[in-house]
Amino acid sequence: MHFPLLLPEFKNEFNLRLEKVRQAMTASGTDALLGASTVNIFYLTGGICRGWFYIPLEGDPVFFYSAPAEIESPVACKIRKPEQIREILDDSGKMPGRNIGLEFDDLYYSDVLRLERVFEGCKHVNASVTFREARLTKTPFELKLIKEDGMRHCAVYSRIASCYSEDMTDLEFQIEIERILRQEGNLGYLRVAGSKMEINMGSLLAGPNADEPSPYDFSMGGAGTDPSLPVGASGIIMKPGMSVMVDMNGGFNGYQTDMTRCWTIGEPSSKALKAHECSRNILRAIEETAKPGTEISSLYALAREMAHAEGLGEYFMGHRHHVAFIGHGVGIELNEAPVIMERNRNPLQKGMVIALEPKFVLPGVGALGVENTYYVGEKGLENLTPFREELDAL
Amino acid sequence: MHFPLLLPEFKNEFNLRLEKVRQAMTASGTDALLGASTVNIFYLTGGICRGWFYIPLEGDPVFFYSAPAEIESPVACKIRKPEQIREILDDSGKMPGRNIGLEFDDLYYSDVLRLERVFEGCKHVNASVTFREARLTKTPFELKLIKEDGMRHCAVYSRIASCYSEDMTDLEFQIEIERILRQEGNLGYLRVAGSKMEINMGSLLAGPNADEPSPYDFSMGGAGTDPSLPVGASGIIMKPGMSVMVDMNGGFNGYQTDMTRCWTIGEPSSKALKAHECSRNILRAIEETAKPGTEISSLYALAREMAHAEGLGEYFMGHRHHVAFIGHGVGIELNEAPVIMERNRNPLQKGMVIALEPKFVLPGVGALGVENTYYVGEKGLENLTPFREELDAL
Repeated sequence: MHFPLLLPEFKNEFNLRLEKVRQAMTASGTDALLGASTVNIFYLTGGICRGWFYIPLEGDPVFFYSAPAEIESPVACKIRKPEQIREILDDSGKMPGRNIGLEFDDLYYSDVLRLERVFEGCKHVNASVTFREARLTKTPFELKLIKEDGMRHCAVYSRIASCYSEDMTDLEFQIEIERILRQEGNLGYLRVAGSKMEINMGSLLAGPNADEPSPYDFSMGGAGTDPSLPVGASGIIMKPGMSVMVDMNGGFNGYQTDMTRCWTIGEPSSKALKAHECSRNILRAIEETAKPGTEISSLYALAREMAHAEGLGEYFMGHRHHVAFIGHGVGIELNEAPVIMERNRNPLQKGMVIALEPKFVLPGVGALGVENTYYVGEKGLENLTPFREELDAL
Repeated sequence: MHFPLLLPEFKNEFNLRLEKVRQAMTASGTDALLGASTVNIFYLTGGICRGWFYIPLEGDPVFFYSAPAEIESPVACKIRKPEQIREILDDSGKMPGRNIGLEFDDLYYSDVLRLERVFEGCKHVNASVTFREARLTKTPFELKLIKEDGMRHCAVYSRIASCYSEDMTDLEFQIEIERILRQEGNLGYLRVAGSKMEINMGSLLAGPNADEPSPYDFSMGGAGTDPSLPVGASGIIMKPGMSVMVDMNGGFNGYQTDMTRCWTIGEPSSKALKAHECSRNILRAIEETAKPGTEISSLYALAREMAHAEGLGEYFMGHRHHVAFIGHGVGIELNEAPVIMERNRNPLQKGMVIALEPKFVLPGVGALGVENTYYVGEKGLENLTPFREELDAL
């Protein structure tokens, strides 16, 4: 088992992340926190194990772990169960005894309850908020991984059209794309935040299936093929006149990019082209204006305004069911902060990585639009998923 | 969106599950509970949505939901947010005001906290335990779905050998098997209980990779190909002398079966054959003796004893790292109750569905053994994954 961030050669990166967590701790009045969720252990160590990463505002952090293997690192401390944490901290005088952060939004109730007993006598605050804040902007090394992910994601998309054949079902097409993703190195496992999100490697929506409302918090739905997983491809044969939206995910190195492209079966209608071009124009307009300091709600407002100006308002972000966002942060999880929606009055910050997905659902056609993942750099947005956006016939 | 169990034709099945939950509630002293996790909403409705299923010990249940679509059912009640639940219950006089069950092990801390406020003034008990108990034995309809899953699972396994080609990596082989699974109707999403379990569609372990310890609670590990997902195939080329263990999962209809078969590259050595046959003999011995009433720990003891009698004790359930169970319940989730381990002194019950996986890891060879999923019937075990078990060369 490997924990690259605990190796001497990644010391700067580890310290940078530690610093980001501590800044967020200061902002939220947290004296010490314990990161134990899979995603935050990965954020702090670069690896996965059953662990509890203790970070005091001042003094040395301790990585308690109970994985089977031995971890060679001055910060690592092997334990059998979390109850030992308190004793070890008390003995070493590291126990701050005030506000302790625990991950309320990332751990099950019984897990947090157990940790609350470990830190009895302290006040418990929500460390999930702290980690979200720390992870809101990416380090240069994280950006490098996300860029690499985007390049590999584009390589997959360049092979998609070649695996289509006439009279395929949407599901058959999706299965071939899943195979290409895996062949190109996709890990096949998508980390999504929230208890009401379930998906395998992304979704493909053909024709009317795009307008099936989803019980999940995805931008588009799809009926799926079984009531136990109502999302994505539904098994229909893809016929001329239908659009096919491919929103299959990245995920090659622990980080993700989010990317959508559309094709049509047969030549696209002028209506389909119009909606698709409107999505692209929205992306161009946002690319031109967005930069650090831009209020996030203004991106949503600009997109909605452009959609309405084209007479496409009723199809914007769904038709039978509309969602109220046009994008979201991307990182270790597919859906990180910030959410790009009307009521998010916060500014864009340098170092954020966001996916923008202004989409339309046209009755009788299906879903149209483009999604790219962008880095928010000093001068503006940098597209991390640069790949042909035209609406081509398959 | 479909919720088959809420349709009139499934009334008996719905009432049967309700009765099982209420029996478990009585046993745990729960007056009413709220099921809100994805798996328990699926158990109660046959579908997926953002919902809170309120079940009082006496009187009518209410399925509160906030999904986008309308659900046509006399038990369904659409709400915007869970805070409305209390008000509606109070107004209708359905609020019992005593011990309320909430799912401590299946919902995030902040979700339970919110529901605790909804049921302020009540005592909150762990409904996850209640649901686990109710789901411990399967209804005849659930068994029908699991049997169907097992048949489809076997159909996949019958195609595995044909997608092998010389000098493939373990990962390339796994990708082809994933594709077959999907082509045969596997939904591609594996529900696994517990916060420390992550996997896509199962694992394939070739040669020495079988002995890599895992941070997850799977019976075998594997290094994976990236530190962000340390499980399963590691990208090595499969060479003569290696065993290849395929533990790729079922999951065609919301229910699962768990099944493992092994192959070798080149003819199997006598050592490999001996370990593999020992696993099969253990399964035969358990199949002959296990029935309702058999103490679960005795299955583990029998397996360990037979492994030791063959001089294979040090390779039993791992070599560098050993796990302390030889099986587990299977249903909506891959890993349900009961765990087949030494300290489980409970009896087998009619209606349980369990996977048994006595496995060995031989240094220099890899993993060997067979896993089947069984129904515990009145007269004993019925194999739901009947497929050739011999150790064949690929």
